[in-house]
Amino acid sequence: MSKMSKIPVAVLGATGMVGQRFISLLEGHPNMELVSLVASEKREGKRYKETVNWLLDTPMPEESGKLRLYKLGTDFKELGAKLVFSALPAEEAQKVEDKFASDGAAVFSNVKVNRMRDDVPILVPEVNPEHLGLIDVQRKARKGKKSSDGFIVTNANCSTTGFVMALAPLRQFNLRKAYVSTYQALTGAGYPGVASLDILGNLIPYIGDEEDKMVAETAKILGTFENDAITPHRVKVYPTCVRVPVRDGHTETVWVELEQNDMVEVADAMMNFKGLPQRLHLPSAPDVPLVVHTKKDRPQPLKDARLGSPPARARGMAVSVGRLRAHENMIGFTLLVHNTVRGAAGGSVLNAELAISEGLVR
Amino acid sequence: MSKMSKIPVAVLGATGMVGQRFISLLEGHPNMELVSLVASEKREGKRYKETVNWLLDTPMPEESGKLRLYKLGTDFKELGAKLVFSALPAEEAQKVEDKFASDGAAVFSNVKVNRMRDDVPILVPEVNPEHLGLIDVQRKARKGKKSSDGFIVTNANCSTTGFVMALAPLRQFNLRKAYVSTYQALTGAGYPGVASLDILGNLIPYIGDEEDKMVAETAKILGTFENDAITPHRVKVYPTCVRVPVRDGHTETVWVELEQNDMVEVADAMMNFKGLPQRLHLPSAPDVPLVVHTKKDRPQPLKDARLGSPPARARGMAVSVGRLRAHENMIGFTLLVHNTVRGAAGGSVLNAELAISEGLVR
Amino acid sequence: MSKMSKIPVAVLGATGMVGQRFISLLEGHPNMELVSLVASEKREGKRYKETVNWLLDTPMPEESGKLRLYKLGTDFKELGAKLVFSALPAEEAQKVEDKFASDGAAVFSNVKVNRMRDDVPILVPEVNPEHLGLIDVQRKARKGKKSSDGFIVTNANCSTTGFVMALAPLRQFNLRKAYVSTYQALTGAGYPGVASLDILGNLIPYIGDEEDKMVAETAKILGTFENDAITPHRVKVYPTCVRVPVRDGHTETVWVELEQNDMVEVADAMMNFKGLPQRLHLPSAPDVPLVVHTKKDRPQPLKDARLGSPPARARGMAVSVGRLRAHENMIGFTLLVHNTVRGAAGGSVLNAELAISEGLVR
Amino acid sequence: MSKMSKIPVAVLGATGMVGQRFISLLEGHPNMELVSLVASEKREGKRYKETVNWLLDTPMPEESGKLRLYKLGTDFKELGAKLVFSALPAEEAQKVEDKFASDGAAVFSNVKVNRMRDDVPILVPEVNPEHLGLIDVQRKARKGKKSSDGFIVTNANCSTTGFVMALAPLRQFNLRKAYVSTYQALTGAGYPGVASLDILGNLIPYIGDEEDKMVAETAKILGTFENDAITPHRVKVYPTCVRVPVRDGHTETVWVELEQNDMVEVADAMMNFKGLPQRLHLPSAPDVPLVVHTKKDRPQPLKDARLGSPPARARGMAVSVGRLRAHENMIGFTLLVHNTVRGAAGGSVLNAELAISEGLVR
Repeated sequence: MSKMSKIPVAVLGATGMVGQRFISLLEGHPNMELVSLVASEKREGKRYKETVNWLLDTPMPEESGKLRLYKLGTDFKELGAKLVFSALPAEEAQKVEDKFASDGAAVFSNVKVNRMRDDVPILVPEVNPEHLGLIDVQRKARKGKKSSDGFIVTNANCSTTGFVMALAPLRQFNLRKAYVSTYQALTGAGYPGVASLDILGNLIPYIGDEEDKMVAETAKILGTFENDAITPHRVKVYPTCVRVPVRDGHTETVWVELEQNDMVEVADAMMNFKGLPQRLHLPSAPDVPLVVHTKKDRPQPLKDARLGSPPARARGMAVSVGRLRAHENMIGFTLLVHNTVRGAAGGSVLNAELAISEGLVR
Repeated sequence: MSKMSKIPVAVLGATGMVGQRFISLLEGHPNMELVSLVASEKREGKRYKETVNWLLDTPMPEESGKLRLYKLGTDFKELGAKLVFSALPAEEAQKVEDKFASDGAAVFSNVKVNRMRDDVPILVPEVNPEHLGLIDVQRKARKGKKSSDGFIVTNANCSTTGFVMALAPLRQFNLRKAYVSTYQALTGAGYPGVASLDILGNLIPYIGDEEDKMVAETAKILGTFENDAITPHRVKVYPTCVRVPVRDGHTETVWVELEQNDMVEVADAMMNFKGLPQRLHLPSAPDVPLVVHTKKDRPQPLKDARLGSPPARARGMAVSVGRLRAHENMIGFTLLVHNTVRGAAGGSVLNAELAISEGLVR
Repeated sequence: MSKMSKIPVAVLGATGMVGQRFISLLEGHPNMELVSLVASEKREGKRYKETVNWLLDTPMPEESGKLRLYKLGTDFKELGAKLVFSALPAEEAQKVEDKFASDGAAVFSNVKVNRMRDDVPILVPEVNPEHLGLIDVQRKARKGKKSSDGFIVTNANCSTTGFVMALAPLRQFNLRKAYVSTYQALTGAGYPGVASLDILGNLIPYIGDEEDKMVAETAKILGTFENDAITPHRVKVYPTCVRVPVRDGHTETVWVELEQNDMVEVADAMMNFKGLPQRLHLPSAPDVPLVVHTKKDRPQPLKDARLGSPPARARGMAVSVGRLRAHENMIGFTLLVHNTVRGAAGGSVLNAELAISEGLVR
Repeated sequence: MSKMSKIPVAVLGATGMVGQRFISLLEGHPNMELVSLVASEKREGKRYKETVNWLLDTPMPEESGKLRLYKLGTDFKELGAKLVFSALPAEEAQKVEDKFASDGAAVFSNVKVNRMRDDVPILVPEVNPEHLGLIDVQRKARKGKKSSDGFIVTNANCSTTGFVMALAPLRQFNLRKAYVSTYQALTGAGYPGVASLDILGNLIPYIGDEEDKMVAETAKILGTFENDAITPHRVKVYPTCVRVPVRDGHTETVWVELEQNDMVEVADAMMNFKGLPQRLHLPSAPDVPLVVHTKKDRPQPLKDARLGSPPARARGMAVSVGRLRAHENMIGFTLLVHNTVRGAAGGSVLNAELAISEGLVR
């Protein structure tokens, strides 16, 4: 693909934490070129770098910093993009994403509002690439409208993303139940997010809506696509979601009930887990989606959710797994997912890469 | 009980974190009087307040601060005590506790080494007071030795203590399985304990030996005492133990499998749970052993593991429970236990109070 | 003073961090009785305990929790109080405090807006009790108005309070310059205040307006009251104010230029420093206003800004000083002040106690 | 310089925090090649990656990880190196460094023990490159010994390094006094270093020896080299050193007394400050040694002491300055130095680069 043929993309909600991560991940992307940024009305016309409170560890991409912001409400056509990443606040996303899709946009959303719609896939490319089939369902439903090409693809909630990545290779062992407790990072709550007085030396044992998302999204993502619809997986998920004073990286402790209790088989399945993104060599696909640690005190957020580090971490796109063990009839393990990369912006970028590769965005 | 008749007690391992808590809890105790402190040889003869690195929030009891330290190795008889609290390092505890018991001491230990011995009870007075029957078994075994009155009673590991307190009222519902993830405080690792570079903004997904303790101790504590022996409870425990950057208070997220899934019944059982310590009005017994929270974001370590606060917290001796909910066939909840009070020194003090009340220490 | 004769008091801004501290400190007060609480309009009529997000370590006083809230804008007369503590946001305080004083209220304010008015004292009772003379100036200025009895007394900014307490006994040595760097706690920024993402493992090297306050307030407080006006002290203050991830307690590192460099003299002056509150035995006055530490690693926020602890800390009303040392021609030391007690609500309560004792509130 | 002619170097104390940083910074170095690692005896013969507890954010260099460790006590000749970086514990460094220098090694030390020796320079290449003249003094003193080529060059203490970098351009304004308070990161105390219970939500107001180092080293570094000796600068330094819960990056708040109070002149002097490393384009030299921030809330450790970020930060080798302001006759500012890069290993690496460039190591 020559530079001329890069897909022009826009980011909605460009100044928030996830918006920033989108911009960071799109820097120098081989298939996509960031052309437009959309934020709230008060920032309209300002240069990105002059108005954003940049929160990432990595530096702001220079070119993107110079872009002038469009206001939310700007027509899709004005943005000069074909593909749109949405990191909008939930209350604004539903209307906007729908309108954009109707206007022909390929919308890759990080927002929860459209995830549970029957005709919208929650895509995790290693896990359920066939769910992209729902795009056709969406397009048919829009037939007759001015543009029938647009569609919406969502990523999963940050906690769910890491969770389904680790569960995916266990489906073959007749996965029936999964107990999961999370240790979620502060960046997952956005900015300003959690007040320091609430979390310094403390934890918050409830994250609104998060447990319901893990139950519903997991069943949908692991489900099968047949006859233009998804049949949810029968796995029963028992989640407890907790916020902890960690900056980046959601840790999750898991016990699963399988028909297989041979640790070697389970470990093999995880270590050898590959998906379509790996076979297609998508630009953001980690070589090894599940990095299995054998040191008992790993994975740790500070050591294993860092970017720019060992190749195995693949810039935050791989999920780390550790503490694999069998006990009675169950398998236990602990996972770590970079919540704003794989669990948010990076997940959507990989979704877009898969859709582009499949010829769904032109 | 007149002041004259207070039981004289000693604390072994007096300068450590748990030793400090023992000293703090014994200040002004109605039935016990702290008379001797034992620490490592290098501190021998020094006044407690001059050598200890006092780490508690609460002030050092003035009288105890003036006591001069005995060295480890001092004979039980020299200490002038009848009852001994042990907060020794594990490697030193086994020999010393045994020797002291043989010499006639009523040893109440916070150390793991003797917990799984067949004739030593792991006592949590609200849960298994009848296990005190093992004291007779111990005494019989020591018959013929110079003193047959001594014995060893252990408390449970800090995480286990909170866990079995919450599980105790669920035994009536045919408790079969329990999945538990912990969020354990730094004080649980002693001092200097966890290096700041390892835990600031991080978590450590493994605590050596802790999960095994939760499995074995829980089954023993919830077990039945018959024919001079304990038959472990059949509950299967699936634990994952994690250290988090919290100072005091272990949080635990739990899912249990019961025959009863009626939330009201379960909540009632927890709220109305009382035990022998409550009926006997033991000095350290909380009026309400399980404080059930209805606010979704509670319990929190910073708000619910503080001492000197609302009576319901009972100076760290009550266990907080929250987030009670039913899902499919399981009951979920989150608990919080003050790890160095109820989960360590306070647990042993209550054990001693029960033994004294039962006439086992004279 | 019989219970019947307690002064009835109201708290403006009752639900904020400082408002909570006022309520906590007024529980069981011997001379004042809390009768009314005022908060924003949306909380009007609600019981305090049902609407407040209680943030203090200490439990909410039961009686105060039952009070129903008045809305801001309620007339002073309706509150049934003679004395009013103001913890309002700055933008609302100026108008309200002035109106209340005009209506006859004795206003003790924690807000900055009136501090630098010529006829309003910034009172730190150990340091400048004679500045209460400005009340007469205020009353004369209001003569002819419906009520000439009301007045406004402010406390100092939290950082300034600790600073002037430590500088007060050094005035005798011809205090000329003071260099001060602060390490300010999160509670000083209120709630939600500082975002966790901004401060976890970080510090913020600027606190808006804080340095200017330290310069101006220090000179005014240490100044002399003559001919109905205050002449500022000539000390030059060079401050740098920094926020750090500490919950309670502002630490300040100080170098002062004096004519006296004899450490013994300086230490003596600090240790023996007493003021009018001590001589009058005011209820909130610490016996020892400056607690001088000799251990090199003290004072520390976690050890020395705790409440409910050693008497010397006097429930957060004493200022801790440590690391006293001489170098070249300067004296260095480090101080710690409990920012929401001595540095905020507690300071105002002591101010009220002094005014009551002097017969200025009846 | 061709690859063949790279100077072979060894690192003493290779497994500690600073040793790790040396190894990290030497990866792919254009002029030096890491050939040998030395650690404590118990690690002898092990591969580095199998024995080290790697603590850095950045990944361990693969080649270095394969090196087998020499034990401390190994002869310089056996290491196959010409140049040695020393990150030894102080108690072991003095003897070893001296022996190595006598044996012909060019020793670049991060240890305090030799810093104040009359014939050893404390080198900060932008500030006092002429102090390298002391190498000749050392060599002359060793004349007649088996090898007269060896020498010792030290870097400055971490806090001092940032401090003298910022003071250097102010010497021209007749720098007379400097008041400095530090906010020092945990990595400065090594590993395990500060106990988490001591610092989580707290600060420690004393760092042993640190203030004395700042006074003595600053005067020596800023001093003049004449007649084979250094005359200390007359600046009087008033330091207070404090540990805060920050991972990387020492912040320092400073007030200086100059003859120049024109802010523009001072800011210009800082912004335009360059030294010999910049003119020589040494590999580790930052283009801009002092990065002057104009945003009031900068520099911050989390934003400005990160590596791998904007070029201006130059991989941790530049010092950030902010909050420049004039008040009365003083200039105030705040600085931030990466304590384990510029303030430790990176400083020594730059020292070595300068010495190599000057032909002192061959």
